[in-house]
Amino acid sequence: MIGIIMGSISDRKIMQEAADALTELGVSFEMEIVSAHRTPDRMFEYAQSARQRGLKAIIAGAGGAAHLPGMVASLTSLPVIGVPILSSNSIDGWDSVLSILQMPGGVPVATVALNGAKNAGILAAQIVGSQDAEVAARLDRYKEELKGKVAEMNAQLKK
Amino acid sequence: MIGIIMGSISDRKIMQEAADALTELGVSFEMEIVSAHRTPDRMFEYAQSARQRGLKAIIAGAGGAAHLPGMVASLTSLPVIGVPILSSNSIDGWDSVLSILQMPGGVPVATVALNGAKNAGILAAQIVGSQDAEVAARLDRYKEELKGKVAEMNAQLKK
Amino acid sequence: MIGIIMGSISDRKIMQEAADALTELGVSFEMEIVSAHRTPDRMFEYAQSARQRGLKAIIAGAGGAAHLPGMVASLTSLPVIGVPILSSNSIDGWDSVLSILQMPGGVPVATVALNGAKNAGILAAQIVGSQDAEVAARLDRYKEELKGKVAEMNAQLKK
Amino acid sequence: MIGIIMGSISDRKIMQEAADALTELGVSFEMEIVSAHRTPDRMFEYAQSARQRGLKAIIAGAGGAAHLPGMVASLTSLPVIGVPILSSNSIDGWDSVLSILQMPGGVPVATVALNGAKNAGILAAQIVGSQDAEVAARLDRYKEELKGKVAEMNAQLKK
Amino acid sequence: MIGIIMGSISDRKIMQEAADALTELGVSFEMEIVSAHRTPDRMFEYAQSARQRGLKAIIAGAGGAAHLPGMVASLTSLPVIGVPILSSNSIDGWDSVLSILQMPGGVPVATVALNGAKNAGILAAQIVGSQDAEVAARLDRYKEELKGKVAEMNAQLKK
Amino acid sequence: MIGIIMGSISDRKIMQEAADALTELGVSFEMEIVSAHRTPDRMFEYAQSARQRGLKAIIAGAGGAAHLPGMVASLTSLPVIGVPILSSNSIDGWDSVLSILQMPGGVPVATVALNGAKNAGILAAQIVGSQDAEVAARLDRYKEELKGKVAEMNAQLKK
Amino acid sequence: MIGIIMGSISDRKIMQEAADALTELGVSFEMEIVSAHRTPDRMFEYAQSARQRGLKAIIAGAGGAAHLPGMVASLTSLPVIGVPILSSNSIDGWDSVLSILQMPGGVPVATVALNGAKNAGILAAQIVGSQDAEVAARLDRYKEELKGKVAEMNAQLKK
Amino acid sequence: MIGIIMGSISDRKIMQEAADALTELGVSFEMEIVSAHRTPDRMFEYAQSARQRGLKAIIAGAGGAAHLPGMVASLTSLPVIGVPILSSNSIDGWDSVLSILQMPGGVPVATVALNGAKNAGILAAQIVGSQDAEVAARLDRYKEELKGKVAEMNAQLKK
Repeated sequence: MIGIIMGSISDRKIMQEAADALTELGVSFEMEIVSAHRTPDRMFEYAQSARQRGLKAIIAGAGGAAHLPGMVASLTSLPVIGVPILSSNSIDGWDSVLSILQMPGGVPVATVALNGAKNAGILAAQIVGSQDAEVAARLDRYKEELKGKVAEMNAQLKK
Repeated sequence: MIGIIMGSISDRKIMQEAADALTELGVSFEMEIVSAHRTPDRMFEYAQSARQRGLKAIIAGAGGAAHLPGMVASLTSLPVIGVPILSSNSIDGWDSVLSILQMPGGVPVATVALNGAKNAGILAAQIVGSQDAEVAARLDRYKEELKGKVAEMNAQLKK
Repeated sequence: MIGIIMGSISDRKIMQEAADALTELGVSFEMEIVSAHRTPDRMFEYAQSARQRGLKAIIAGAGGAAHLPGMVASLTSLPVIGVPILSSNSIDGWDSVLSILQMPGGVPVATVALNGAKNAGILAAQIVGSQDAEVAARLDRYKEELKGKVAEMNAQLKK
Repeated sequence: MIGIIMGSISDRKIMQEAADALTELGVSFEMEIVSAHRTPDRMFEYAQSARQRGLKAIIAGAGGAAHLPGMVASLTSLPVIGVPILSSNSIDGWDSVLSILQMPGGVPVATVALNGAKNAGILAAQIVGSQDAEVAARLDRYKEELKGKVAEMNAQLKK
Repeated sequence: MIGIIMGSISDRKIMQEAADALTELGVSFEMEIVSAHRTPDRMFEYAQSARQRGLKAIIAGAGGAAHLPGMVASLTSLPVIGVPILSSNSIDGWDSVLSILQMPGGVPVATVALNGAKNAGILAAQIVGSQDAEVAARLDRYKEELKGKVAEMNAQLKK
Repeated sequence: MIGIIMGSISDRKIMQEAADALTELGVSFEMEIVSAHRTPDRMFEYAQSARQRGLKAIIAGAGGAAHLPGMVASLTSLPVIGVPILSSNSIDGWDSVLSILQMPGGVPVATVALNGAKNAGILAAQIVGSQDAEVAARLDRYKEELKGKVAEMNAQLKK
Repeated sequence: MIGIIMGSISDRKIMQEAADALTELGVSFEMEIVSAHRTPDRMFEYAQSARQRGLKAIIAGAGGAAHLPGMVASLTSLPVIGVPILSSNSIDGWDSVLSILQMPGGVPVATVALNGAKNAGILAAQIVGSQDAEVAARLDRYKEELKGKVAEMNAQLKK
Repeated sequence: MIGIIMGSISDRKIMQEAADALTELGVSFEMEIVSAHRTPDRMFEYAQSARQRGLKAIIAGAGGAAHLPGMVASLTSLPVIGVPILSSNSIDGWDSVLSILQMPGGVPVATVALNGAKNAGILAAQIVGSQDAEVAARLDRYKEELKGKVAEMNAQLKK
């Protein structure tokens, strides 16, 4: 089970791609809005109970001064994947990226590309697949499909 | 009483300038290391008890993915002044600045310049002085002294 | 009483959010266009008379080479809150942010996020609330409401 | 077993911190120089055989136009952790960060902070610990030690 | 013969300008989708067989963490021209530019402007024209035509 | 007569290059410290009396949130040349550059390169030389000397 | 007489604002397309004959790798005003700004804001007005009108 | 024969690496200081006569507002390789990179990494080797040597 959290309902459109990737790769997940700045207590509970509740990793998306991924990482020893979101109050995404990526020594956040929720989902599956042969096999199949898509594109290009 | 907090002992050299400014302007303060990422529980207690303990404002300094000022601001309704610090793991200070400045609507942090702890101290005094005539008078005197320093510089330039 | 000033009528749409926040939090304000570059004399008068006229803080919004907040801060010892505005002649907002934030030692400006006028209003209320129990209570209620909004978002997400 | 690779011997000083973190957390590792641009064949072999050789994750450090982490991620379905290195030919680290972080959909790299090899080691341990209770327990102990260090810093500050 | 490759069909609109420039300058070319991250094996074959297949230069376009030009350059000693593309997952093009431009010593990529596929085509023709008098003559004629276009613009301006 | 002003004695080392260029080109000047933020009244007087005192242009150097050139330009209709200075509290000079360059429509500042005080001096001489044949002749001679220096460098290179 | 030049007809919309400002301030001008990269010979002639043809200053607008202002400045000792244009092939305007602003010592370009052609026109008038009392008077009147516009805005705000 | 030019003797240390690479790869070259801004006439002659004098490509290095590579490219149809140099008046190298890279459609410059003169030399050799089997063979051998160096580094790492 993977936890997907985000700071606001406006992040849902992006974060849904993480859920879709997990669904495609057969990994279960839960999804919830947890705001570092508006519901800090809820964030504490969520992060501190995550391992006991059976989560294997947490995907956290946020924009602007994006503190959710890093704060969750400070409260659990599970792997935390951060998705910088280009929210409306962001300066071209730089604030989202830097406030998630540049964590101090001791508290890592596995950061993916700006708006890269799809990759966050795949990365969470890779973490599960690191020790689960079935998920690993699905990931290998997914890689093969990527090749197939390039072949299709080439057919389209040559037309 | 103003609270001055910072994420690490390595921020002390910068943050001492906030303390010095407050001393010069006759405003009392306390100083402590509170790390958002290493001591999140302590940060909660500190911020949530701040008003009851008589603090009028909190100055929080941090570098890199600097979450301390914003998280403290999410936990108290006192004014929180953020000092972006050019720490060793910072990308030219941009991460420190953006992860403090770009707070979402509802949770402001009064951000000062990179390494601008001196101005954080003066700003805290201005907040007190907003309703304390004595501190206001000291701030006006301080402004006069700034003019005097320029006059001295001109004397030096003309030599 | 809080003073809200801006460099141009085109900044009004953004700056109105500061006024709305102050209204919501029960803090009175006045609003005026004062341009550092077009009406420098008026800016002088405004800033130098601010404390006598009973202002507790000044919120100044400006874009591009945004000199209004810093110049006002040089002319009064009241707290000055700067709102960097993404105006049409701005380079992605960087000019607005840096020319407000990076004030020299001695003359602080409490800078909020790009277009963050709402937070400027809340911060001004926090400055008043620092020593006014009624406003402080309203700020605490406002924080509770933020939590409520997240709960609503979660209900929406789960549907 | 975690694989640690880097593009050049000059990256060793930084990447050693990943090895040290893994040692401290009791996770075994191997370390090798594999250059995307100088030994592309070797990189292929390394990445494509990684899972069979028993690796659970790969940490790849590189600077400038840093292609090693992303190319390895394209060749294995194991989790790949990228460490952007501030090498001598880098433009303030931006090239290293962006060429590792901004991977296209389908091929994630778990990126850590600039020069953040220590956090890469901890993240690799978290991936293992996601399903290994003993490593998870060591990670929790490590978190406790971080708190202890802040307490020591406070003692030092108060002296 | 010049090889034009790109990472995705979405890059085609931009890369077609390289093809058009080569057509205009009378230099033959082939065009194909080769993805560094989705078809790394195909990229290897393409680059390693390029010289034997008679290519004189390769134009490679990619966006985001753009590894295609640099990886191809690591696999052939032909000149490789890189076109940074402002793809949808790019941070204002900076990632595309830096991950192509900032190659380490030993493995150059001739980088052109963001979305500068037209110039990539002209540059490839210049490489051929460096030792082919006929193509060189066409390039000189092209330069004359550029002057003619400015004359036309002036006529339009003066109207 | 050209006015050279700067915000602090620490800017003198850079600004002296403007004075030296004017001396070399035979244009008289005066030099003074005028701080926008510490001596706003003095700045007003200086700028508003500049034309009457016979100044033909003003060179203003400042760093960080550099308001001096723009504010002086708002107070006089003489040409104002701005020199962005890489001061110690600057973020790589970006703040200095943007807060001088990005002036709103109606109030221009003629901005030169970061630390480009020498060019500010030459530009001031060009403004005088625009209508003074003698200064124009000296500027032409200066251009010839630049060529001579390249010839000397070539002799050195060929040794 | 002021010369206004630009690299392409697509820059006309912006550069017309310089012409309009000069018209409003009663300073004559000529306007022409001169491309540094497409008509380098014409640029040479234009710049080298400018003073003899009676020009008092040259306004040059260009975008991307904008070489026109700097090259013209290398070929004449008249003041050259550079207008960075946010052209379609520009990276957020940074290329336009930096390739005009950052001229080496000896060859200044008076740079105005991104797309700041209006200010370029005013600056050219200020250069003329530096020694022409009539133009200076018009500039002072223009400054008064700016104040009037702020008064009108305030009336609008108060409604 | 390859032409290596640079704007100043201070660029020599960097540009010597281009010469060394050409020497190692058995391609002849000439080296000269040609300044776009100080010796524009000399630059014209150099570029316009380059093909007749037998040059196959030109390597041009410059820093700051770096106009030399682009202007040379506007004056010859030979391939021009641009080396952005981190000169003392540069803003972290961004000005050098952008003013060389971002050439308009029609006039390409083959840009290499900041201070990447070594790669400029290799790229020039690749251009020659594109149609010269002997140079191509040397380039292939050079690629093999790069592999050898990685093997040596691995030996060193394992010690």
